[in-house]
Order: sequence, then structure tokens, then C-alpha cells
Amino acid sequence: MTDEVFGNSNGEITIELPDKFGAKHYLNGSIRTPWTRREDCPKNARESDAVCTIVVDERWAEALTGVETCSHLVVLYWMSRSRRDLVLQVLRHYGVGRGTFALRSPARPNPIAMSVARLLRVEGTRLSVVGLDCLDDTPLLDIKPYFASTDAVPDAVVGWHAARR
Amino acid sequence: MTDEVFGNSNGEITIELPDKFGAKHYLNGSIRTPWTRREDCPKNARESDAVCTIVVDERWAEALTGVETCSHLVVLYWMSRSRRDLVLQVLRHYGVGRGTFALRSPARPNPIAMSVARLLRVEGTRLSVVGLDCLDDTPLLDIKPYFASTDAVPDAVVGWHAARR
Repeated sequence: MTDEVFGNSNGEITIELPDKFGAKHYLNGSIRTPWTRREDCPKNARESDAVCTIVVDERWAEALTGVETCSHLVVLYWMSRSRRDLVLQVLRHYGVGRGTFALRSPARPNPIAMSVARLLRVEGTRLSVVGLDCLDDTPLLDIKPYFASTDAVPDAVVGWHAARR
Repeated sequence: MTDEVFGNSNGEITIELPDKFGAKHYLNGSIRTPWTRREDCPKNARESDAVCTIVVDERWAEALTGVETCSHLVVLYWMSRSRRDLVLQVLRHYGVGRGTFALRSPARPNPIAMSVARLLRVEGTRLSVVGLDCLDDTPLLDIKPYFASTDAVPDAVVGWHAARR
């Protein structure tokens, strides 16, 4: 959910970040989407039927073997423009402070976004998918097959969200 | 799925990794599990009812505000002992080469594991959960609320896996 975050006011709380990083990631491709401004991005991935294209670096071409048999993929990508020091965030359409780990906001210590995307087709190293919500040219971190047996929990509840409806 | 990977034989294919990293991650805590050897880990997260404990660094304590209202969490963690150069992998119990992006194997360019965990309770910065499959003391990357509306796809299919049953 790419909810916009208010400036650093309204009860937001930031912290001092650790002085070193602990893990280093390759950027393995990029995600092409119709959205070039944050305010144009869908608020969540199910809000849009837009087809996006995951362009995987040629280096990893063979790693896509078998991906075409998946109906859905777990896509991890890097929200590189996000703040990383927010612990409490105030989302515009709720107005209450929530902890970063209770939110899907891109502003988080490691701004890794996770979306479940429906795979339409694979053409070489280009994957056409529906269900992403990120800015155009977002760096790709990982692609995984989505297993309903372990990843689908249809009766899961986010209490704070259900209560606000 | 923490499927073991054969040595570098049997049709596995490796590539030369990029010469630089593109993203840097903080390690924000650690995951305590009953498993200290890879061969003891459950093959997938639904295979065990063991309670694991996510110990979040104190620095991020406030970021947990509201997490206690979630029934399930998306947990991202860092499989630090994994190879990163495999594009085609041969899993022991299948015997056929599959592309890394079509597998949940921890060996991948960015060894970020994603599991959906059921939250039992939150005590300070310690979260008791069921549904993880990693080694004891695995570094934590991120915690997110699991939204059934966007994350649950009960009819998703992994074709190569379904065909092997």
C-alpha cells in the first residue's frame, strides 16, 4: 500500500539509523509501470488493472526457466526514494500514528516492497504482470513463485485496518 | 521452501555475479527458531507448528505499534549462508533443473526469504509466530501486515510443481 506519508509533523516519530548496513543486494532488473509520479500510483496493487513489465537483467535469463508455469508471482522491489528513519507514521487518509511494521508504507528501515502479481506472459526476460503499484523504473530485487499452500491466508485480519472501515 | 541444493553438478548452472551491489540493507533483529542445522529445517513453513520468536532491535520498538492487531505477518529475512550465483538449480526431491526465480530455494541473487507467519503474541519487541522455516539466529529484514485483500490468492498455481505431484 503506497500510502503517502505526511512531512515530519503530525505525530510522526523518526529515529537515528544504525551506522552501518548488514546486507547488500543486487538490483536484478527494473519494473516498468505507467506511473511516473508518486501521487499517480495506485494506493494498493488491487486498485489497478494496469499491465506492468518486469525487465530482468539478461544475466539472469536462465533463472526464469519454469516461471512461465506460475499463475502468480511474489515480486520484491526496492523503493529507493523512501525515508528509512520513520518508526511511527501518520497516513493521510487515517490521521492516526501507526508503527512502520504495522503498515505497508514504502517508508521503512529496508524499503523492500512485496506484491503478489498475476503473470500474463513471459517473453524472453520480460514478464508482463498485473498487480504492481510502484513508480516506473523501480529496481527489482527478487521474483518467487507464489504457492497458495503457504502464501494464501484468505481469513487473515489486520485489526487496525478493519476497525477503521 | 528451503529445498536443499545439490553441489555444483547435476546440471546446475552458475553465472558470474555483478561486480557491485545496488542496495544496502539494515539487519533489524533476529529470528530465533528451534533449528540449528539446515537439514533440520522444515521443507516449507506449513510443515511445522513450531513457535519461533522474532526479536526486533530495541531501536525499532515503536515501529511495532499496531502489529498486535494483525493475525498474520509477512516476514522478510536474510538467508545469509546461501549461494547467490545459481541460475538453474536441481532440487534433491525433483531431480530436474529449475530456474532460480521459479523456486523458493534460499540460493538466489538476493537471498531474501518471504514467509507468511501467524502471529501468536507480542511481548515488547519479541513476536511469537508460527510459520517460519529458517535457521536459528537468521537476520530480520522486514515485517509487514498481511492483507488478505491483496496478498491471498487461494487459486494460484505453480504449474511445474502441480505437474510433479
